[in-house]
Amino acid sequence: MTKHKVSTAVIRRLPRYFRHLNDLLQGGVVRISSNALGDAMGLTASQIRQDLSCFGEFGQQGYGYHVETLLAEVSDILGINNGHNAIIVGAGNLGRALIENFHFDSTGFRLTAAFDINPTLVGTRLAGIPVLHTDKLEQYIAEHPTHVAVLTIPGGVARETATRLVDTGIRGLWNFTNVELELQNKTVVVENVHFADSLLALNYMISE
Amino acid sequence: MTKHKVSTAVIRRLPRYFRHLNDLLQGGVVRISSNALGDAMGLTASQIRQDLSCFGEFGQQGYGYHVETLLAEVSDILGINNGHNAIIVGAGNLGRALIENFHFDSTGFRLTAAFDINPTLVGTRLAGIPVLHTDKLEQYIAEHPTHVAVLTIPGGVARETATRLVDTGIRGLWNFTNVELELQNKTVVVENVHFADSLLALNYMISE
Repeated sequence: MTKHKVSTAVIRRLPRYFRHLNDLLQGGVVRISSNALGDAMGLTASQIRQDLSCFGEFGQQGYGYHVETLLAEVSDILGINNGHNAIIVGAGNLGRALIENFHFDSTGFRLTAAFDINPTLVGTRLAGIPVLHTDKLEQYIAEHPTHVAVLTIPGGVARETATRLVDTGIRGLWNFTNVELELQNKTVVVENVHFADSLLALNYMISE
Repeated sequence: MTKHKVSTAVIRRLPRYFRHLNDLLQGGVVRISSNALGDAMGLTASQIRQDLSCFGEFGQQGYGYHVETLLAEVSDILGINNGHNAIIVGAGNLGRALIENFHFDSTGFRLTAAFDINPTLVGTRLAGIPVLHTDKLEQYIAEHPTHVAVLTIPGGVARETATRLVDTGIRGLWNFTNVELELQNKTVVVENVHFADSLLALNYMISE
């Protein structure tokens, strides 16, 4: 299996395959044709065959895809079984919403700690996750393998916090701060969550 | 200007144009070539010319784009000047994070009210926005023109709440609940925010 030269568009569709296949599996569907999967996802059958061919041969002509097998393959491609650990930096409303409601485990992450500077939070636990002082970031990461940091801090401290995290050797930042992080270290992946892009697209669609 | 037959991919890129042009304007850039804008956005110059040609002729050969003019055009295309009103249903952590930190106005919306069933919240204000009881949804919308509802309620009540909202004649739902809403009324636009898709893509990228 080669993962090279996979386009951004395909990478962005992989989580959607994962989501739809999970829904199908939970709905008791054993196998599905590329046509039917395409209909459910708003893609053509040939697009689906092309996307999945980036990673190997999964379907079988005249049979389609075995849902459970394809889901396992897509999960594997996405790195869900890699045992990655995540921390959250910023336990304000958004941080807490993620700590309490987001299923990190279903995306292959274990959330191990949260960080904040608020003295009423530091030392407590939120949904079982310990809240440590942000001063302890470097020390914590040195002692606990950490692959991804979720940034739910105020925008004003986003850049300096990102720099500190990058210096620890972290591999990815899940950035909710709306600050464009231009990192010197290009091996660190930044995934931005732009709420505004989503609401703007909705504005366009209701204005049509 | 025709808005018909604009592909989903172009619609998804429009907010990114808006964001980059805003950054350029704030950075004092007066005009930009399609090459330079493409570099900043990770697109080719011809892709940019093609995207924008869906809506009319904006650039000028040998000059490029006048940043402020193009931003005004893109804002207009996105419907930012349409004076849309939004409400938030669910004032838990995520709802509060949006009420307190998200700039609805910069996406062309006015946030007018929040709804919750929590008696300690109902009757109060969050960041100046009144919190009403969810029982009052229909009455409120009948009295106050409302175009979009933000769903930050628990998944268990997502479908029934969406149905109630659709029955009021609302035009769009900004859905953070992770529940797939299959609406009977196909004229209502649902924009889903799938946090998990974003984190899965990050998992893929750090696993490469």
